[in-house]
Amino acid sequence: MSNIQTHEYELLKGMEKRERRILAKVLSLCESDPGKANILLGKLPKSTAHIVGMTGSPGIGKSTLVNAILNEMPERRVAAIAVDPSSPFTGGALLGDRVRMQSHATSENIFIRSFASRGSLGGLSPSIYEACNAFESFGMNYVIVETVGVGQSEVDIVNVADTVVVALSPDNGDEIQMMKAGLMEIADMFVINKFDNPKSQILLSRLRAAMAMGRKEIPIYLTNALTGEGVSDLVKALNERFLTISSNGVLKKRRKNRLIHHAQSTLKRELDFLIEKIDLEEEGIDLDGLRRKLIHALCWNHSESRK
Amino acid sequence: MSNIQTHEYELLKGMEKRERRILAKVLSLCESDPGKANILLGKLPKSTAHIVGMTGSPGIGKSTLVNAILNEMPERRVAAIAVDPSSPFTGGALLGDRVRMQSHATSENIFIRSFASRGSLGGLSPSIYEACNAFESFGMNYVIVETVGVGQSEVDIVNVADTVVVALSPDNGDEIQMMKAGLMEIADMFVINKFDNPKSQILLSRLRAAMAMGRKEIPIYLTNALTGEGVSDLVKALNERFLTISSNGVLKKRRKNRLIHHAQSTLKRELDFLIEKIDLEEEGIDLDGLRRKLIHALCWNHSESRK
Repeated sequence: MSNIQTHEYELLKGMEKRERRILAKVLSLCESDPGKANILLGKLPKSTAHIVGMTGSPGIGKSTLVNAILNEMPERRVAAIAVDPSSPFTGGALLGDRVRMQSHATSENIFIRSFASRGSLGGLSPSIYEACNAFESFGMNYVIVETVGVGQSEVDIVNVADTVVVALSPDNGDEIQMMKAGLMEIADMFVINKFDNPKSQILLSRLRAAMAMGRKEIPIYLTNALTGEGVSDLVKALNERFLTISSNGVLKKRRKNRLIHHAQSTLKRELDFLIEKIDLEEEGIDLDGLRRKLIHALCWNHSESRK
Repeated sequence: MSNIQTHEYELLKGMEKRERRILAKVLSLCESDPGKANILLGKLPKSTAHIVGMTGSPGIGKSTLVNAILNEMPERRVAAIAVDPSSPFTGGALLGDRVRMQSHATSENIFIRSFASRGSLGGLSPSIYEACNAFESFGMNYVIVETVGVGQSEVDIVNVADTVVVALSPDNGDEIQMMKAGLMEIADMFVINKFDNPKSQILLSRLRAAMAMGRKEIPIYLTNALTGEGVSDLVKALNERFLTISSNGVLKKRRKNRLIHHAQSTLKRELDFLIEKIDLEEEGIDLDGLRRKLIHALCWNHSESRK
């Protein structure tokens, strides 16, 4: 017991001193025991980072774009989280970019981490919430969360990020998919990457038409992540947006929404965990009885973890 | 209040009398208000149907296979549930088969229903549990649940079905995907559909090699769903398996596992519902406070729905 408390003190002190090796340990705790991580992080003062979600279909250069953004923020402390495609469907496209990102890995200001996407295909890792909190306690200025870009994670990111950047590419008929998946509803900014492709003009005009129809005005940025063109404008826009939402109440609202979804995600994760422990041999229990048992276990699980 | 109770009595009576129009109403209730459906179904005597999960990648002919199975069971009361691809990713491939299935729709013994897959991509509809219970209360002999065949639903089906049939096709490199997605772990039977394709011999030998490696022996059936070849053997095997698992304790174990996952799914669904009601404006609440609030709401939500 006293051993554990010493360990905790070490973690708290290391986080305050911005020791990268301690941050790595805390992030591992976020993945392995998020309940404990939440309690630990609750004991630390927290600064506010700008949490940016980067979403869009696989293969349009999201990782390269994140990489280019990191290049444009040499003076800021930035964390980049990539949600790992643990599913067989998404392949290894990210891996190459991950390696590219590693060029930043030695920089003191930049911290890169990948998280497995557990559970349903394309879902955000439930530890993303804890990881963002850890990065904020560490004093990061920016946390960039890159989604796999498949299914639910594209939309779920709105419950994590202060700003959702939807990246599109002229190559792959994204404008249609975008409409279907509800990306128009969650985008705070659009980025058309590979804008040197002549087809990007068509995409741009379709995007503007869709916005006119939906009576929305979402800023659009044109980039070429590989050459870095247009990326400084995007970074400038991100910085400006953070100042705006900090003062007009939007940030506060997003953070409350995030807290609610974090609590929901925590409970769902606990349910997944508790289900493994239920005694299959017990006789004569019905749906209602099991339901009550699970709710009881949720209460108990919590008070237990606080010991 | 008395009006609602009359309505409930009508539903109960109609279910007992096997009125199809009442079954349709109860299934709609399963989708719209599963909590209420659970209470209603708890009041009905329940027979045990053989719940068969049909899974496998999109486009390998699952719906056609279900259709062929229905043809081979003229004397049984069979329900077929297709999980609708509500996602933009899976397209309309199922639709054609659905129409083909409709040839059975007029038969007194067969009931076909499609369910939207809500939430995460490829997930099973959480109402599947209630729908299976409704079909059992109606006195069906078989309930065949066809999954979309993408991601999580392929594996989740093991928590619903008494028997999981994994359909493979020689066309699309399924043997690789099968290994990755953990289908080997959940399969009770394999079906190689379109077995007239010469490549099916390669698939067959790879499947046998994989089983030898995993020290598993899972029966393999060869079918051609379009012509109906091999389907009667599959149906015979399904009938025999149901007799076996009814007497050797396997059915009992699967049903307990199913009950536990049903309770978990119910609570998760309630959490999704409760999150919409939380007051964003309330000040000074933290993760721990919200967590307790949600657990409290779960208890309350339940007692309320029982009124």
